[in-house]
Amino acid sequence: MSTPLEPTARTRTNRGRRRAVVDRSRLMVLLDDALVAHVGVQVGDRPLVLPSAFGVDPDGPDRDGTLYLHGSVAAGWLRAAPAATVCVTVTELDGLVAGRSAFHHSMNYRSAVVVGEARLVDDPAERQHALDLIVDHMVPGRSATLRPSTRKELAATAVVAVPLHEASMKERTGGPGDEPADVAGGTWGGHVPLRRVAGTPVPDPDAGGEVPPDVTARAVALGAG
Amino acid sequence: MSTPLEPTARTRTNRGRRRAVVDRSRLMVLLDDALVAHVGVQVGDRPLVLPSAFGVDPDGPDRDGTLYLHGSVAAGWLRAAPAATVCVTVTELDGLVAGRSAFHHSMNYRSAVVVGEARLVDDPAERQHALDLIVDHMVPGRSATLRPSTRKELAATAVVAVPLHEASMKERTGGPGDEPADVAGGTWGGHVPLRRVAGTPVPDPDAGGEVPPDVTARAVALGAG
Repeated sequence: MSTPLEPTARTRTNRGRRRAVVDRSRLMVLLDDALVAHVGVQVGDRPLVLPSAFGVDPDGPDRDGTLYLHGSVAAGWLRAAPAATVCVTVTELDGLVAGRSAFHHSMNYRSAVVVGEARLVDDPAERQHALDLIVDHMVPGRSATLRPSTRKELAATAVVAVPLHEASMKERTGGPGDEPADVAGGTWGGHVPLRRVAGTPVPDPDAGGEVPPDVTARAVALGAG
Repeated sequence: MSTPLEPTARTRTNRGRRRAVVDRSRLMVLLDDALVAHVGVQVGDRPLVLPSAFGVDPDGPDRDGTLYLHGSVAAGWLRAAPAATVCVTVTELDGLVAGRSAFHHSMNYRSAVVVGEARLVDDPAERQHALDLIVDHMVPGRSATLRPSTRKELAATAVVAVPLHEASMKERTGGPGDEPADVAGGTWGGHVPLRRVAGTPVPDPDAGGEVPPDVTARAVALGAG
């Protein structure tokens, strides 16, 4: 049985508790929906936040599962991460909330914060597994259709694991939480749903053959017409 | 004349220079398109990254303009920010890149990193201006249609300014940069465009009257049918 979210003081939601989510299965759905994580590392005396692809193994070797990041071995943020505490934040924007006052404007969103000590992945089998997960997170099923990575490619790629144990999540849905006086005053209030949609896959000029089923399925799952 | 991007060592793109953007006008377009920033602050001995709405004043009082953040005065990250170095990262995901190898999978994106010393905004006029910009960033023109903020609302809201001077930006477009041998091998390669679209505005059950033109215009601008 998996640990509820917010297992530690540093992942405790202190503000906006009504938006806090503690059911870990909701975190896994968010991580499945989202395509980009924002990774915070300490570089020197300041925080650095960079966007990154990621992959998730709910049964990974770390407590409550593993989130994998990758990048060039030359990337400063990846070199700074191992053994340091990192913060991986994943956000899906679901809507704009137009309140009847500036104060009650808001957004509908799901956002998770994962805090943990990053682990450099050395084991070749775990590295390959992590890279497959990252590719399949972008296009499910794709990794099985590709040639194996070369030794040179693997040597150029750093893989970092972050335990999913220390995580918190917030979610907001619906319309504005306006003041009764503003509602009575007749100002319009509501929300505008937002979602991500895919266009038709664009083959390279020298792409061989038809768009493969995995790519088509991904685009359709993301709403391509 | 505005400063080109990457004006300092800490905003210098060391890796992936071919994706670096130095034209500041492209940063301003990205900040206009994006709705959420990921803000990194140092909290104790670790980085914390949280999603946030934001507003931009290209002619703000800080060097090269001002990015405004707001939140509850009780929020720990906002209390940690003033006088500290913060990192504000804004990313728009524009597509998935399906390479002919795992190594050449990528994403199309625009991402900016703004680094600076956060300034707590005390001046009432600047605070009101910042809050209007944040509302109008969500729904252009909306702030002019709303009642003024109350003293209580203003007292509950912290506003932080970050100079836009120290910023860098990267952009990736198009298909994969595959190995010639993989292209010759006939594996399919291409990309899947992604974009954010709005649905039809959803009025509150007790919303007064028709959807106002600013909200309709925003939804249409974001692709609502």
